[in-house]
Amino acid sequence: MTLELLSSQKSFGGWHNRYRHRSASLNCDMVFAVYLPPQAEQGGRLPVLYWLSGLTCTDENFMQKAGAHRLAAELGLVLVAPDTSPRGAEVPGDPHGAWDFGHGAGFYLNATEEPWARHYRMHDYVVHELPTLVEAGFPVNERRGISGHSMGGHGALVCALRNPGRYRSLSAFAPIANPSNCPWGEKAFSRYLGGDRERWRGWDACALLAEAEERLPILVDQGDADGFLVEQLRPEALQAAAAAVGHPLTLRLQPGYEHGYYFIASFIDDHLRHHAAALNL
Amino acid sequence: MTLELLSSQKSFGGWHNRYRHRSASLNCDMVFAVYLPPQAEQGGRLPVLYWLSGLTCTDENFMQKAGAHRLAAELGLVLVAPDTSPRGAEVPGDPHGAWDFGHGAGFYLNATEEPWARHYRMHDYVVHELPTLVEAGFPVNERRGISGHSMGGHGALVCALRNPGRYRSLSAFAPIANPSNCPWGEKAFSRYLGGDRERWRGWDACALLAEAEERLPILVDQGDADGFLVEQLRPEALQAAAAAVGHPLTLRLQPGYEHGYYFIASFIDDHLRHHAAALNL
Repeated sequence: MTLELLSSQKSFGGWHNRYRHRSASLNCDMVFAVYLPPQAEQGGRLPVLYWLSGLTCTDENFMQKAGAHRLAAELGLVLVAPDTSPRGAEVPGDPHGAWDFGHGAGFYLNATEEPWARHYRMHDYVVHELPTLVEAGFPVNERRGISGHSMGGHGALVCALRNPGRYRSLSAFAPIANPSNCPWGEKAFSRYLGGDRERWRGWDACALLAEAEERLPILVDQGDADGFLVEQLRPEALQAAAAAVGHPLTLRLQPGYEHGYYFIASFIDDHLRHHAAALNL
Repeated sequence: MTLELLSSQKSFGGWHNRYRHRSASLNCDMVFAVYLPPQAEQGGRLPVLYWLSGLTCTDENFMQKAGAHRLAAELGLVLVAPDTSPRGAEVPGDPHGAWDFGHGAGFYLNATEEPWARHYRMHDYVVHELPTLVEAGFPVNERRGISGHSMGGHGALVCALRNPGRYRSLSAFAPIANPSNCPWGEKAFSRYLGGDRERWRGWDACALLAEAEERLPILVDQGDADGFLVEQLRPEALQAAAAAVGHPLTLRLQPGYEHGYYFIASFIDDHLRHHAAALNL
């Protein structure tokens, strides 16, 4: 597998690199970003935190706006940010050009319906193909954490809950916590997965929590001034699902905070430390 | 003077607000951003650091990408970021739509030539009109610092050197240090100020240093992998000008760093602490 280096910029003594590669899972070219802290040049192998971004984002939003490099450089934590969907002329998008479906809105699942099934397999890409690439190409070990924002918070929860043992740490910012029961999720799931809601359960953190084999502690931050809170995000459903089975969940409602990167930046250090502790940093 | 609040987002316990107002200096509507740290709600009056951005930027780049809110919140420092030029349909721009002149490229000077002189008076806006607004509308005192990046680094140096006593602290990232002798500066100055190079001296930090009444210490960071270093930025000219008169300048060449916000973010804390010390924080 060939990685084409697109750019390399020094940041906090480490390197922010962007790569393009052909994805076998997604049948298209993909771009992802890696932040390598200064410790990556010291001969050891470091743990990796995967970050999944939200609707409309690319690999760039988190790296540019979250302010995560500073503490990652201090902790010795590699950060990896994939794109939010397959892309390119050969990849079908929303027929009306909507921003909440198709390009930039892969929802981190494996689509079963046409015309989406050939390309929209972001779950396999994020959980398997990308870590294989990263673990072959960079000085990292197999200690993995996963986090994300909004659609990517949903993605982080689902990737970890579907794959016990694969991640050692898990957190989310303002996740779409119960996608089977919100407009964004219903639109995406009904197209990518079809109309049978029973099949949606495998991609909904609340349903997955009920059957989780592993009790990986979850940290969730949610702004209480987030305009998407009530209709789309529904953290109370996640809290109820966790409580029902005794799954360790720390849900923090942050007063006055909204949905964007100023909110994420304000609390990213807490999340990095949550992951670092579980990743033995 | 009326300030129209465009948005308000909580960040690190404080508030990032954007405002629109009619500028008397520039004869157009302008947008600027203010970061108010949590201490702004505690009854006192805080010092202000003015940040001037580079070519093509708006008030948003610094606030979103520099990672400055975290330490500003800790220090109790207000941050103010204006736009980089007058804007709008009534403001003439580059006749060929170039990105290095006109809209987004005001060079923080007062133009004397037509058709620029009516609107392009960013020096007066930044040094007088904007601080008057800020000091009337927010819980700040008259302790001012100024910093900026690239074209805005030039702006910060020139604003402080032309106005002794007005700023208590000064720094710059990768400033256009000697605009009279680089392509960006020559293009802008010849149009905004006309062809008489003698008149350019009042807007060139190297020339101003030679006659500065005040020895305000300057901190400058410059990446040595910055693609604009040799042709456009010329920090060695600034260093020579400072040395010639004994002006206190700390110029740090940062190995491996480029021109963008990953570079700025990596060293913004040092600059905020430089300003905080001089502003009695």
